[in-house]
Amino acid sequence: MMNIIDTDFNKKLENQLNFIIEIDKVKNIIRKSKLFDGSRFENDAEHSWTISIMALLLKEYSNININIEKVISMLLIHDIVEIDTGDTFLYSDKRDTIHTDEKISAERIFGLLDKEQNEYFLNIWNEFEERKTNEAKYAAIFDRLEPLLQNYILEGYTWKKYNITYEMVIEKNKHIQEASDVIWAFVLRLLEKAVEKGYIKYE
Amino acid sequence: MMNIIDTDFNKKLENQLNFIIEIDKVKNIIRKSKLFDGSRFENDAEHSWTISIMALLLKEYSNININIEKVISMLLIHDIVEIDTGDTFLYSDKRDTIHTDEKISAERIFGLLDKEQNEYFLNIWNEFEERKTNEAKYAAIFDRLEPLLQNYILEGYTWKKYNITYEMVIEKNKHIQEASDVIWAFVLRLLEKAVEKGYIKYE
Repeated sequence: MMNIIDTDFNKKLENQLNFIIEIDKVKNIIRKSKLFDGSRFENDAEHSWTISIMALLLKEYSNININIEKVISMLLIHDIVEIDTGDTFLYSDKRDTIHTDEKISAERIFGLLDKEQNEYFLNIWNEFEERKTNEAKYAAIFDRLEPLLQNYILEGYTWKKYNITYEMVIEKNKHIQEASDVIWAFVLRLLEKAVEKGYIKYE
Repeated sequence: MMNIIDTDFNKKLENQLNFIIEIDKVKNIIRKSKLFDGSRFENDAEHSWTISIMALLLKEYSNININIEKVISMLLIHDIVEIDTGDTFLYSDKRDTIHTDEKISAERIFGLLDKEQNEYFLNIWNEFEERKTNEAKYAAIFDRLEPLLQNYILEGYTWKKYNITYEMVIEKNKHIQEASDVIWAFVLRLLEKAVEKGYIKYE
């Protein structure tokens, strides 16, 4: 890392700020989905901003008790590993094997922090990935809901480009129901309308 | 608004999602500061993402008790009014008069939500602007600290471009001390180093 904070003031604070500078690189990691206005592809920082607000705004629809600070912390940092691995498309074959590389990246990046914060963020990153706790299940809704909405608004842009079918979307998103019956019912309705409008097809 | 969610499923949820689509426009509001790698100017969504993580990461340095959920909510949404008004530079003369227009924008945008959420977000937006409560004072640190770090890392890019002096930076940032003695002491040290390195000048 060339450009770092080097004020010799407070080593712990400087390491925390150098972590902030390192994770800034996620602003150059480009996703497969476009902004809602279709003008360009979204980057990981913008995606994380949107889904953090969604998680705050829609918490009334959670089926399960959640600690919202933990949910937001997970969502804000869940994609920083892509600084090393790049964005992996939800429907890619690589999706199953990328986790090992992402874990190495998480250890490198959170390793810039002191032991306590390193462990905290590595744990919540792992927790989000495993999707077993209430917070991870609730947070996972929004990582999926944003691209579903983007595809609906942009007439199935990514679905058409990569030949994604209705059944593939259901398979990759059905976990939403465990954390929110309301949002899952909405997703089913959205997909039904998307089929009607020709944005996505049945197999 | 042309592109909206129109599934006739659940009006409240649809209004919330249409709010998410509306605030996506903040990804096209460009700031005066560049990313830490200097490659391009930052947008408001990216800025809000960074400062939300800073507020989580650095809470040990707060002088005052804070509700971190409220802090993060403030930081995530504080700039969405710029969808209507554009970004106003911290050192601009317009800074004192822009508040009325920003308030009209806040009322329009949060008005997309139902009464309860409209009031909640309008209140925390106002609270952040007024900088009187603990949460607003703590949140305000990070809205200022990110551009200070960007300027230091990029050798005073914005300071040089707009003839910003050491004294002007002190004047606009001195409120940081009220919420964090440690971060304020760090900022003073950073500015001292910036003067030494020729990134900024005394008057």
